[in-house]
Amino acid sequence: MQEANTYPGGLSADATHEVPRPSVPALDSLLGHSFPVLDHGHIRVIDYMGDEGAILQAARVSYGKGTESVSSDRGLLRYLLRHRHTTPFEMCEIKLHVKLPVFVARQWIRHRTANVNEYSARYSILAREFHVPEVTDLAPQSTSNKQGRAGSYDLAEAAAIQAMMRESCDQSFNVYDALIYSEDTDDGIIGTNLARETAREVLPMNTYTEWYWKTDLHNLLHFLSLRADPHAQKEIRDYAEVMCKLVSAWVPHVWEAFEDYRLGAHTFSKQEMAVIRDIISGHGFTKTHFQQIGGLSKREQTAFFEALGVSQEAEA
Amino acid sequence: MQEANTYPGGLSADATHEVPRPSVPALDSLLGHSFPVLDHGHIRVIDYMGDEGAILQAARVSYGKGTESVSSDRGLLRYLLRHRHTTPFEMCEIKLHVKLPVFVARQWIRHRTANVNEYSARYSILAREFHVPEVTDLAPQSTSNKQGRAGSYDLAEAAAIQAMMRESCDQSFNVYDALIYSEDTDDGIIGTNLARETAREVLPMNTYTEWYWKTDLHNLLHFLSLRADPHAQKEIRDYAEVMCKLVSAWVPHVWEAFEDYRLGAHTFSKQEMAVIRDIISGHGFTKTHFQQIGGLSKREQTAFFEALGVSQEAEA
Amino acid sequence: MQEANTYPGGLSADATHEVPRPSVPALDSLLGHSFPVLDHGHIRVIDYMGDEGAILQAARVSYGKGTESVSSDRGLLRYLLRHRHTTPFEMCEIKLHVKLPVFVARQWIRHRTANVNEYSARYSILAREFHVPEVTDLAPQSTSNKQGRAGSYDLAEAAAIQAMMRESCDQSFNVYDALIYSEDTDDGIIGTNLARETAREVLPMNTYTEWYWKTDLHNLLHFLSLRADPHAQKEIRDYAEVMCKLVSAWVPHVWEAFEDYRLGAHTFSKQEMAVIRDIISGHGFTKTHFQQIGGLSKREQTAFFEALGVSQEAEA
Amino acid sequence: MQEANTYPGGLSADATHEVPRPSVPALDSLLGHSFPVLDHGHIRVIDYMGDEGAILQAARVSYGKGTESVSSDRGLLRYLLRHRHTTPFEMCEIKLHVKLPVFVARQWIRHRTANVNEYSARYSILAREFHVPEVTDLAPQSTSNKQGRAGSYDLAEAAAIQAMMRESCDQSFNVYDALIYSEDTDDGIIGTNLARETAREVLPMNTYTEWYWKTDLHNLLHFLSLRADPHAQKEIRDYAEVMCKLVSAWVPHVWEAFEDYRLGAHTFSKQEMAVIRDIISGHGFTKTHFQQIGGLSKREQTAFFEALGVSQEAEA
Repeated sequence: MQEANTYPGGLSADATHEVPRPSVPALDSLLGHSFPVLDHGHIRVIDYMGDEGAILQAARVSYGKGTESVSSDRGLLRYLLRHRHTTPFEMCEIKLHVKLPVFVARQWIRHRTANVNEYSARYSILAREFHVPEVTDLAPQSTSNKQGRAGSYDLAEAAAIQAMMRESCDQSFNVYDALIYSEDTDDGIIGTNLARETAREVLPMNTYTEWYWKTDLHNLLHFLSLRADPHAQKEIRDYAEVMCKLVSAWVPHVWEAFEDYRLGAHTFSKQEMAVIRDIISGHGFTKTHFQQIGGLSKREQTAFFEALGVSQEAEA
Repeated sequence: MQEANTYPGGLSADATHEVPRPSVPALDSLLGHSFPVLDHGHIRVIDYMGDEGAILQAARVSYGKGTESVSSDRGLLRYLLRHRHTTPFEMCEIKLHVKLPVFVARQWIRHRTANVNEYSARYSILAREFHVPEVTDLAPQSTSNKQGRAGSYDLAEAAAIQAMMRESCDQSFNVYDALIYSEDTDDGIIGTNLARETAREVLPMNTYTEWYWKTDLHNLLHFLSLRADPHAQKEIRDYAEVMCKLVSAWVPHVWEAFEDYRLGAHTFSKQEMAVIRDIISGHGFTKTHFQQIGGLSKREQTAFFEALGVSQEAEA
Repeated sequence: MQEANTYPGGLSADATHEVPRPSVPALDSLLGHSFPVLDHGHIRVIDYMGDEGAILQAARVSYGKGTESVSSDRGLLRYLLRHRHTTPFEMCEIKLHVKLPVFVARQWIRHRTANVNEYSARYSILAREFHVPEVTDLAPQSTSNKQGRAGSYDLAEAAAIQAMMRESCDQSFNVYDALIYSEDTDDGIIGTNLARETAREVLPMNTYTEWYWKTDLHNLLHFLSLRADPHAQKEIRDYAEVMCKLVSAWVPHVWEAFEDYRLGAHTFSKQEMAVIRDIISGHGFTKTHFQQIGGLSKREQTAFFEALGVSQEAEA
Repeated sequence: MQEANTYPGGLSADATHEVPRPSVPALDSLLGHSFPVLDHGHIRVIDYMGDEGAILQAARVSYGKGTESVSSDRGLLRYLLRHRHTTPFEMCEIKLHVKLPVFVARQWIRHRTANVNEYSARYSILAREFHVPEVTDLAPQSTSNKQGRAGSYDLAEAAAIQAMMRESCDQSFNVYDALIYSEDTDDGIIGTNLARETAREVLPMNTYTEWYWKTDLHNLLHFLSLRADPHAQKEIRDYAEVMCKLVSAWVPHVWEAFEDYRLGAHTFSKQEMAVIRDIISGHGFTKTHFQQIGGLSKREQTAFFEALGVSQEAEA
């Protein structure tokens, strides 16, 4: 028989089972460590909530007990990701401390479903930290890809560009410092004690800022599908790549599924599918041909053949 | 000197300090316990992330180191809540398992900034569990408040109403069961094996459902400011009241501030403020009169006197 | 030379060009009309904002002037949709008045990025309107698809089920009416004047409600990709299908692209793509083979061949 | 009798009344005009959806027909705003074209419930346009308010600061231009044809960008309550002030209510309310005293007296 207990604030509860918070040892071992990104940036995992069990628990309340019998845990996670049943992935949450250049922060913040607290340049003085690309990351404007770089410089040219960038930013910080100084200095700089919120206007876009950033796993994966992509700017991709590794430590089967069904997947349009079906049917492919190759689950094989319009009759 | 370590996936990090996840013993002791609400409902805390320290940490990254010197932790939490600096409160997250009638769920789901996975009546058969109000919760339609109840019934009348409601819902479940049964039964019921998604159409609005519901502390407090309010329907208020106690166990100083600056606060319009100022100035009140009464912080006192237009001259 | 004008509130502006709000005659002609859905439901377009020009305008501010030269309007719309550049589609907004059964409303409301105002059963009395499926829409529970229906009933059986459902709901409404009545009636019903918010508990899930629902085009398309899908419940699909037609009247090229790249598209996993590439390369397909078939744009052809790993050398 | 019509896509509808889109002449006359803000910025209204009637329509579907009898339109709008019934205000939408410095854009974008398409410095070259404050807007760092400015400079000092800022930004743009140039110039500048996404790293935070920004009226008012506030930075406040005037042209009664119940209102904490009640009761104030002063509606009067704990006995 269940017994009623009393709790703080006069709450009473059935004395069911006490359940500790789920934790993931592989991620616990990374907590608080600072993974460097770019020249002065980093990512640190501050806290997280939930594990793969939390996703399964949420999926099973939705899809009912039936899912337990037919699916292994891994199979269900893959099913959810494949079919874009996104809400169970929202049950996991992660909080990062990130130090990053402002121009990267501006791309990052476009992901709206997240919680953010950023260092304020109205309240506080910004340190002289700005991003300068490695010489190997400097490249000319691409002509085919309007938003990218292509080709490379010879080392001397790259070094010269790097020096130009560093000098320009140093110069801007010199002005910032002079504006911020509350008194004139001995070496002749005139400190104007200008309001910080005004002085920071002159600082370059590659000045480092930092923030706490918290989001759920579904939105994090969406972020990664866009920002770990080759079309993303190299600098935000560097952050995304660290985050990919954090996700693979946190929820390894989800990460595996994400690689298979999202990063490594390809979507064909209606017209393209017609071409594929035509080619393949014209050459008399049957299930048997495919079975010689594929290592797909039965459910995936069926979906695959249906997508290609391949006759099932060959099975007989 | 810092040493670089290697982590899963080839991540390397500066060997800074390992930090365990923040936890709140008072809330840990409630995890997994099922707090009953209404006749068949409950709320269980499944997991949470963050504590008051997480709010302070986020605030201090935004508002700079200066906040440390001037504010105690409690003072800063109160300042943030008073001035509606809401983003630091988003750094805490909580996940509940809730069992609740559908008509309550429909009010609850209007709060959009949350993650939800609900039991599916398309996949699964609904148990014969529906809400019937206590006789003391039955009351006639209010005439002054179009969305409320007022007055009371004598006990016999209330019991009759209760019986009508229970009988009607039982009747609906009888039909549901018959539609769902896959075979005819010995006692003459014709089972039609109707699709679950169709059969559930006949079930009453007070049928119990359940869901996992996850949200951040800022949105939870907003939920409570609306749903623990006397204008909310009694049945959702019962859930809100349990949640208030959970919040007070989790983040006690935030809860205290929420009671002082939100639940117990009052907002006067521009016109009302003019009246109050007029009365008070007409009676020659000065800061000194007020200081004999209030126990406010210095910063709050200044804001208060300014709001009331009380003369500062008495200070001399 | 530009001349400064003065506007209400003391605003002054450069006298640039006056631009009327964009409008879409094909959608204007549908405004206010009530398109019936199910037995008592409907969808009405109340208002909208933006047209395909608004999407293009937003894309071109993001992607720069270069996009004008290389892309026709239709081509750019298709490019945006194909590559999931979703933000320009958020520049269009639509507001619908929908009348729908509560169980459909519960599925619908899960789409959180929308604005909703619903009829309140706390304030107002619900009319005796509930959904009863057509006999042809009644079907047994599917055994293979846990959330679906499959097979069919003979007409007599379907009619019997329909009658059971109608009778049960009528019965529930009888109780609701009696609870709501403020006085006893001549024909012996005892009116209890019960609060509306309580009385509605007994009403069935298929009771009709209504709401104003407003969302942007990106989120509307996402809604349709899930709710016009064969896996969605038939009843919400009926609403989605009307909405598809409204979208095709509003933004016809977007709709066309949505059909090609979303509804008619297929995504292959990493493993499936390996199979396709293996098959096709094993049989020596070249670009020339494909060119005999496809009617794709040059850019699409290149992407297609890359996805399949087909050698480009055949071109020579 | 209603007649069914046929529409594009095979839609049929009851021939109800054709309703044109609501429009607001006062806002129509502002469409497309460019209202200057700061030295190079502007705000233009591109499009909008809905008027005060749309708010009322949404409120009345929620709160039932009863609201029509007791409330005038203006009264209902004020009631909704006073009691934070926010969803009806979400039924109005507005889209702006804004040109603004990056440091302002970074504050602005923190408002997440909006749709944005911004000029891309990865695709396109940024023009030499940056913000330099007016001499009268230059002020020293405040000592009491860590995030503000206070006091003033003499004109010569301000002019010197302004020159320092302008020169620094010009210098940064010189480097940007040199990095961007695809060829060496005759006057000795070495063009490196650096990728745009990299070159822009050196540009200052006050560089102008532009975007289309679309949001609903509820979120716009929330934006204005924070950004038209004296605590907001002067530069974003300048934008907010233009937007206030646009709102007052669009929905004048809402604006009036917003001024009365939000901008001009004051919230007292539980402790402050105790002080006010104590003072007032100690001086024997009754409803009658107040009624000689206030011009509030009956409903507001009742709420006011209750909040102040003023005796009702004087009424007799």
